[in-house]
Amino acid sequence: MKKVTIHDIAKELNITFSSVARALNDHPSISAATKEAVREVAKRLNYQQNKVASALRSGRSNVIGVMVPNLGATFFNSIILGIETVMNENGYTILLYQSSESSNHETKGIDTFLQSRVDGIISSIAMGTKDLQHYYEIKKNDIPLLLFDRAVDELGVPTVRIDDYRGGFLAAEHLIKNGCKRIVHISADQNVKSFKERFKGYKDALKQYNRPLEKELIFYGKPSIELGRDCIKQLHEKKIDFDGLFAFEDYTALGVMQQLKEYNIKVPDEIRVIGFANEAFGAYISPSLSTIDQQSVKMGEEAAKLFLKLNKDHHYYDNPPEQIVLEPILIERESSHI
Amino acid sequence: MKKVTIHDIAKELNITFSSVARALNDHPSISAATKEAVREVAKRLNYQQNKVASALRSGRSNVIGVMVPNLGATFFNSIILGIETVMNENGYTILLYQSSESSNHETKGIDTFLQSRVDGIISSIAMGTKDLQHYYEIKKNDIPLLLFDRAVDELGVPTVRIDDYRGGFLAAEHLIKNGCKRIVHISADQNVKSFKERFKGYKDALKQYNRPLEKELIFYGKPSIELGRDCIKQLHEKKIDFDGLFAFEDYTALGVMQQLKEYNIKVPDEIRVIGFANEAFGAYISPSLSTIDQQSVKMGEEAAKLFLKLNKDHHYYDNPPEQIVLEPILIERESSHI
Repeated sequence: MKKVTIHDIAKELNITFSSVARALNDHPSISAATKEAVREVAKRLNYQQNKVASALRSGRSNVIGVMVPNLGATFFNSIILGIETVMNENGYTILLYQSSESSNHETKGIDTFLQSRVDGIISSIAMGTKDLQHYYEIKKNDIPLLLFDRAVDELGVPTVRIDDYRGGFLAAEHLIKNGCKRIVHISADQNVKSFKERFKGYKDALKQYNRPLEKELIFYGKPSIELGRDCIKQLHEKKIDFDGLFAFEDYTALGVMQQLKEYNIKVPDEIRVIGFANEAFGAYISPSLSTIDQQSVKMGEEAAKLFLKLNKDHHYYDNPPEQIVLEPILIERESSHI
Repeated sequence: MKKVTIHDIAKELNITFSSVARALNDHPSISAATKEAVREVAKRLNYQQNKVASALRSGRSNVIGVMVPNLGATFFNSIILGIETVMNENGYTILLYQSSESSNHETKGIDTFLQSRVDGIISSIAMGTKDLQHYYEIKKNDIPLLLFDRAVDELGVPTVRIDDYRGGFLAAEHLIKNGCKRIVHISADQNVKSFKERFKGYKDALKQYNRPLEKELIFYGKPSIELGRDCIKQLHEKKIDFDGLFAFEDYTALGVMQQLKEYNIKVPDEIRVIGFANEAFGAYISPSLSTIDQQSVKMGEEAAKLFLKLNKDHHYYDNPPEQIVLEPILIERESSHI
């Protein structure tokens, strides 16, 4: 069967090709009667609108590209759920891309989003990304861009994140209030602003409660179970005394708890542990893991709402970039209580 | 700055618009010299090829759409990793869509994939999907479709899955070999073929080891922690005696273990438990959860490889649909050992 085109509809109604095209795209210059007639014939002939061409004409695809560093994290999954809920309610569909923390992958993903003619991009920056060229490219194309969680100010785009400084402060303060005198902190690459902020919060909590900052209690590495295990091994070998540990994310905290168990050191009796991010497994393990919740579903919802608000009048980049900062929430479980 | 178009290049070289377009798309009718000249001018004028238009012409976007029911599951995340690895190595990018087990969402996602001109779709069917119309639509558009895990034969497309029957058999047999006499099975909606097959495997293992199939030991529900908790509550209230439990997926098994703990019933001493899917948390909880591994990364890799092989000669649907069936692997942890 030959494919029905706009020309067939135009011929049938004896109007121009462009009138049919505009009618199908609900253009204001076409009368309601003509639109109705075009729709009727289109339906009768079983005309399938070429959605790509249509998107090119209208400039709208109603698709939003969402870029996340790591789909394995509960945190990013919950944010996606939040974005999806709000966006679906407003007639948008979400396409996802996983950067796997690689700048190269991220660049490819953004390229693919632009190629797919998304109406906007909501992203959390990969840890491997130093050069922001591909993000500037989005702005240059006048495509709305919003960053969540791992956001940078220099791009000058709207952002939604939590107060990581406050989260770090809350975690360290919680351990201090539970009697800890020497609190280890495990952090990561200080290029990632959110990790740096958590570290700062830890330092300020120590200061506020008159505890010294001790260099031998600070560790750096890549977020992973191995990192946590490794830090405990080092502390054990060097016979460094400590009674509390704040890991910058939950998987690292899990490694800490696993290695402590192997050494037969009791959590929370001997060492009190707190993580960050409220990953799902934290509630299932024993002792269950205390952590800082980042309001991830809400973060996704707020990101979507802010995006929609700014995109409404098609002047997305006209105003100074809005920033939403959410409050972190302390989740007290078994691992940190005396 | 005015955007450089194909017309500018045509004017500069004094050749036709369509010659430039064909040259840019490496069309065989254009001489190598012309192609070279066109590329040179395009570069000098800083011409940005419209990738959508280009994809429309060449009919290739090098993007594959991957549809998963639930991004929160380790199982699906690992499959995505497997697909990504192979596809990236072969120059393809992956766009993801989450159906959240809803047929409506799934339909919208497939629509969005087609609209984005993906070169193919790799999907696992949502539990809510009864009507396969949107999948037939993909085939009708002659877009390559491959199903993994939750596959149906009636669509007549290539599939990659594990032998769920064998997995169910292995799980039940393992409990029998560990001394269990009365083994509870929790399953779900029997519309989902893989769950039905696991149930069948359980039944056949009982038969082979001369154990009766007892109706009061069979439960159905939606995969969730709550389902597992609920089944244990029912067994407890009805004072039904059992010493082993095989849950059709790990979250349900987790709920089982949580509720047993609340009743102070010891796993594995009093009840031996095994799940299915090898979710990440299973290794972290105590006792750690025995389970059936579905070789998820390999499943993703095999799916991508099969797709690429069939898509090579552009006759994707010409041959009878190939089916790859992977072997399930028993993972023995603490929850099932006497």
